[in-house]
Amino acid sequence: MVTRPAHNILGEVLPRNYITIYRYLLEIFHPFAVLVAYLKGQWYCGSGAFPISSYSMRPAGCLVSAGHGTPSLPRCTRQMISERFGRGQRTVDMELEAQIDVLRDTRHKYEQVLRLARELSAHLYSMLQTQHALGDTFADLSQKSPELQDEFGYNAETQRLLCKNGEILLGAINFFISGINTLVNKTMEDTLMTIKMYENARLEFDAYRADLEELNAGPRDAVALARMETAQQQFQLQREKYERLRSDVTIKLKFLEENKVKVMHKQLVLFHNAISAYFAGNQQQLEQTLKQFNVKLKPVGAGRPSWLEEQ
Amino acid sequence: MVTRPAHNILGEVLPRNYITIYRYLLEIFHPFAVLVAYLKGQWYCGSGAFPISSYSMRPAGCLVSAGHGTPSLPRCTRQMISERFGRGQRTVDMELEAQIDVLRDTRHKYEQVLRLARELSAHLYSMLQTQHALGDTFADLSQKSPELQDEFGYNAETQRLLCKNGEILLGAINFFISGINTLVNKTMEDTLMTIKMYENARLEFDAYRADLEELNAGPRDAVALARMETAQQQFQLQREKYERLRSDVTIKLKFLEENKVKVMHKQLVLFHNAISAYFAGNQQQLEQTLKQFNVKLKPVGAGRPSWLEEQ
Repeated sequence: MVTRPAHNILGEVLPRNYITIYRYLLEIFHPFAVLVAYLKGQWYCGSGAFPISSYSMRPAGCLVSAGHGTPSLPRCTRQMISERFGRGQRTVDMELEAQIDVLRDTRHKYEQVLRLARELSAHLYSMLQTQHALGDTFADLSQKSPELQDEFGYNAETQRLLCKNGEILLGAINFFISGINTLVNKTMEDTLMTIKMYENARLEFDAYRADLEELNAGPRDAVALARMETAQQQFQLQREKYERLRSDVTIKLKFLEENKVKVMHKQLVLFHNAISAYFAGNQQQLEQTLKQFNVKLKPVGAGRPSWLEEQ
Repeated sequence: MVTRPAHNILGEVLPRNYITIYRYLLEIFHPFAVLVAYLKGQWYCGSGAFPISSYSMRPAGCLVSAGHGTPSLPRCTRQMISERFGRGQRTVDMELEAQIDVLRDTRHKYEQVLRLARELSAHLYSMLQTQHALGDTFADLSQKSPELQDEFGYNAETQRLLCKNGEILLGAINFFISGINTLVNKTMEDTLMTIKMYENARLEFDAYRADLEELNAGPRDAVALARMETAQQQFQLQREKYERLRSDVTIKLKFLEENKVKVMHKQLVLFHNAISAYFAGNQQQLEQTLKQFNVKLKPVGAGRPSWLEEQ
């Protein structure tokens, strides 16, 4: 029977003997890891510093047995704690980290725009339903009230015209929502996933670097030398991985920035022109705006399944 | 110890001996009375034909003891059932009843306008809150995105302008709601209360008339003659009451019609002009419309108590 190996909070595979100790440590350090994520300012990005989905990306065998024959904390956890308490050294790419912070902040703000645009769309949709009913009621009253025929009549006409234009505006707002949603939840998300992999690789790289430094500072017998060689190889492999991911992040950030400006420029111009045309009562300009941006309109309520489909 | 006398469904006072029989009849006839109200088309007016509030208007002593010494149905209930089964005669003022039907229909339609206008106001209020937040978010992004500064900037500006005009429009819609509410729930309600009193008086009048006819058709001994005299007096009193209420209703309907046209003309012109000005982006015309109709604006949310007041 094959059993899956146990992992620690960082996804590192644990030998069976250490499972009980690790579980105990997990109990202690899991809230700590959450706190660390919070202190790193990653809390508001909607995922902790060590999301569940990234556990499986972690390499196996990151556990260290300290030089004195007693089991110690897993390598990456130890590195993370050392960094947090200002003892461990941390590889820092200032420029890249600043760019990453800006991206996280931008994403947060765009998510806010997305949420508000969705709210606006929902309110407008409700308003159109009401205006439609109001138009019908005014039209009915216009026919049945000879002495107020004109007053009800032009109110009915206005509400109906507003409904028609409102549906076009709704189409434009939904196109805007769709564009921002793709940017935030697909394009930016993809780059942020790479960033998370890069951040994990940086932590591992520093953990292996710290190991090597520890071994260098210790006695130099035959066993130690063999260990040092293995540590050197692992350190080298982690450095390559870290540098490859750093390069990936740099490239993705550059492309994302270009893409973001292009997409947002288009969407913001569409949003502004459609809103301005609608609230200036300029039907022609409104229709032209949608044509210009190649927005296809769905009839209001088309997205909702009928009760027959729901059954 | 004073006990209140029991009443039947029409509010008629019952002697103690009849209470048990009446309760039994009530069980049978109450659903019937509801059905009658429905068939009379009064159901949709939001009150049955015999609303609770009108019970107390009924005169006491409407109970008849039939000529043969056995307790019979109370007078008005019997008259109502006779009319329903096409046996009893019913006093009809065709013109007045047609006017009353029109009023009930108009009230129903205006209630619909009122409900929709309230919905519109609520949706607009929500939309303004969203536009306000959207304006702030765009302004913030404009400051922090050098490469999209203009696009975010003019979107922020547009949303803020729309909020400002939207608050004025909200004031106009709320003024419209207030006007229609007074017309429907105060002016029309007052006339409809008089109409209910008139309808009850008509039923009582016909019930006394039927009594008198029954006595006229019976034997003419001394007891019967004394009874006939009493019945004649009661019939006369009821006729006067009925005619006075019919006259009241006629006058109230005339004044209501004049008042309705005046109020609705004003409100519909205001509603149309404010909506048109807002959706044409014409701030000046919007402000002028409110000035013309002497509409005072309350700041958005001013009607809601603060959390301090709520405590």
